Amino acid sequence: MFVTFEGCEGVGKSTQLNMLKDYLCRTGQEAVFVREPGSTRISERIRTVILDPALTEMTAETEALLYAAARAQLVSEVILPALSAGKTVICDRYVDSSVAYQGYARGLGADMIRRINSYALENAVPDVTVFIDLRPSASFRSVRREDRLEREAEDFHNRVYDGYIAQARTSNGRFVLIKPEKDKFETQRKIIEALREKGAIR
Amino acid sequence: MFVTFEGCEGVGKSTQLNMLKDYLCRTGQEAVFVREPGSTRISERIRTVILDPALTEMTAETEALLYAAARAQLVSEVILPALSAGKTVICDRYVDSSVAYQGYARGLGADMIRRINSYALENAVPDVTVFIDLRPSASFRSVRREDRLEREAEDFHNRVYDGYIAQARTSNGRFVLIKPEKDKFETQRKIIEALREKGAIR
Repeated sequence: MFVTFEGCEGVGKSTQLNMLKDYLCRTGQEAVFVREPGSTRISERIRTVILDPALTEMTAETEALLYAAARAQLVSEVILPALSAGKTVICDRYVDSSVAYQGYARGLGADMIRRINSYALENAVPDVTVFIDLRPSASFRSVRREDRLEREAEDFHNRVYDGYIAQARTSNGRFVLIKPEKDKFETQRKIIEALREKGAIR
Repeated sequence: MFVTFEGCEGVGKSTQLNMLKDYLCRTGQEAVFVREPGSTRISERIRTVILDPALTEMTAETEALLYAAARAQLVSEVILPALSAGKTVICDRYVDSSVAYQGYARGLGADMIRRINSYALENAVPDVTVFIDLRPSASFRSVRREDRLEREAEDFHNRVYDGYIAQARTSNGRFVLIKPEKDKFETQRKIIEALREKGAIR
């Protein structure tokens, strides 16, 4: 099973992923955790370029192509081999992020993003996508805003959210929307329950 | 006018470009010289990833997307502004290199390369492409073979050559094929004559 996690900045995605990792470890379930952009030597090198806050002149096209390049390497080197070996793969962000950030928020359009990514994805399409469903306005102040994308203005992050919702509507049930609770353990319970229902974990 | 230079490794392309730069300088003609991948801060950062000889695990798709990313930044930041200002731009390698190297030699196909580059190119299509027409077998020993692409085997570089020739055939006269002479000054004379005929330089 291939599971991806999506959401706006500062909604608690990393916290929930760490809690899920602990849960799977405690219950003796194996999974390969990866993050985007990154998780291979080449993709991490690309990540330092994408997120460098000094590179303010980067065009939206360059950004979209760099994400696709990092993804192509991750899919080929880690995700597809793990899935072929019957392992569960859990990925922090994936192509839905590119559609939301570069397609919707930067205005390149969802079609352009899907097209340049079609070569990267081969057959690595997620079975379940957990979307932490929170508009950034409520959560934005909690983010440290250190990298180039976190530093974008609040209306940019609102367009990202709208981009996710548009994708969730047409995802044929692949998206699971999780409204985060004040208690992070309660949010985690909802995520585990949803992933169990989908058969992705026990 | 937008002029690009293409050719296999070790055919004397850089030497000819330097001689052309000198000629234009001596004759009081201005031109913007750029190279691919590179010539912007972001593209040079991408270049260090693409050409790193240690990164032997890089997939063909990743390589093609990284070239397109570096190109998108160069087109937007340097080439289009220079052309809009009426300047002559002379670029060492461009999208024909990607078609020859990743499309033909790596086997991704010309269509895939043209599609991922269509977003990078906007309207920056070369007016003239000077192709130094020499099969790598004759020239290959002269290359230092320091970067990741130079280190490919000889049959790879033969496929690159075939890819160039296939493009030249369908380029509707954009490609100018220059057979290099033993005397580099003679080769330079042929290049200058061809570029004058095309109205790219005086």
